[in-house]
Amino acid sequence: MRISLLGGTGDIGEGLALRLAYDTHHEVVIGSRDPERARNKAAEYERELDSRGVDRTVNGFVNAMAADRGDVVVLAVPPDHVEETIEDIADRLSEDAIVVTPAVQMRRGEAGLHYDPPAAGSVAALVRDVAPDSNPVVGAFHNLSADRLANLDVSFDIDTLVFGDDDDATDIVMRIAGGIEGLRPLDVGSLDSAPEVESLTPLLITIGLHNDLHDVGVTFG
Amino acid sequence: MRISLLGGTGDIGEGLALRLAYDTHHEVVIGSRDPERARNKAAEYERELDSRGVDRTVNGFVNAMAADRGDVVVLAVPPDHVEETIEDIADRLSEDAIVVTPAVQMRRGEAGLHYDPPAAGSVAALVRDVAPDSNPVVGAFHNLSADRLANLDVSFDIDTLVFGDDDDATDIVMRIAGGIEGLRPLDVGSLDSAPEVESLTPLLITIGLHNDLHDVGVTFG
Repeated sequence: MRISLLGGTGDIGEGLALRLAYDTHHEVVIGSRDPERARNKAAEYERELDSRGVDRTVNGFVNAMAADRGDVVVLAVPPDHVEETIEDIADRLSEDAIVVTPAVQMRRGEAGLHYDPPAAGSVAALVRDVAPDSNPVVGAFHNLSADRLANLDVSFDIDTLVFGDDDDATDIVMRIAGGIEGLRPLDVGSLDSAPEVESLTPLLITIGLHNDLHDVGVTFG
Repeated sequence: MRISLLGGTGDIGEGLALRLAYDTHHEVVIGSRDPERARNKAAEYERELDSRGVDRTVNGFVNAMAADRGDVVVLAVPPDHVEETIEDIADRLSEDAIVVTPAVQMRRGEAGLHYDPPAAGSVAALVRDVAPDSNPVVGAFHNLSADRLANLDVSFDIDTLVFGDDDDATDIVMRIAGGIEGLRPLDVGSLDSAPEVESLTPLLITIGLHNDLHDVGVTFG
């Protein structure tokens, strides 16, 4: 599959790009608003992979080009860029491309971070509202520490929660996530679960702040 | 310490009563709206403990009597009984008793359970609004499987998230929670974290539904 990571130069995008290229056979393409930045970062990821004996091509393009022909398009962009990113790529998006949303909107409080969803109710609901109707929307990769993900020396054993209204699309994203070593995808039903899943991200950061833990992940069982 | 478990005849109350009596030296008192039910359940818990060679007294009273002289009063009641329970016990509540809230308000959706907080913003905020000003409110014990907790044959290794605006009160509840074997308390700051913590309970149930997991708990790290 061709996986397009928009915002693939940011920290969660970097982690996903490296892990997917390292652990799976999917084609990994990264996008950015700045095509030169995308190209430079893609080359950096290739060097990082090459230094570990993994000869993989990672291409970098401006977001719309990166989304072109993507089977799965991951919106690894800040939540306030989600709408504009979808508008940028709408013309290039394959009709049945799966749109994946890992973004969470948060606000800083006195004693930690807090969930602060957009008016749509969640970032996932916003993506569903803005994306073309033919493109199934799946939530995944919210609760991952970007640093742990991007550091290929670190192994982990954590869960990621996957949800969506289209079962086939959800299954595909579950399988992609499960291809990353140490990552266990868990199905959490429909887009209605987005607020609970997105709420977990500020909680993980707050737990880290108060308990001297770093790069906190979560496991269920 | 004297720990008063109001709603101590319900499933989460039962689990906490048994584990606290089994693993710690705190005095455990259970409360119910029905004093006879409280007495019967307390006797049942004593027999359960006795069958494991643990000779502990567990007393059962009507809620107001159970709250009397409690150092820590746990509102292990359904969320829609929280307000009325606090009104019932207000006259008996010691001035500095710590009020602990483990309750979560949820609604059933098509593909799982969802967080459905009261108008106050969270059950914890409702408790803070209704409880006497002198009583510090602490959230804890939300994300525990009642069945796992109540079955003393089952060992577990899960986390519980503790939050509150009074650091001393939070510390006391952290220590009490940490006295239960296999339970790790994590500090998640102030009452502002209540929505994120309470949101986790429907998520655990939904994860169980979709992934053939039972009595799902959570660990962070």
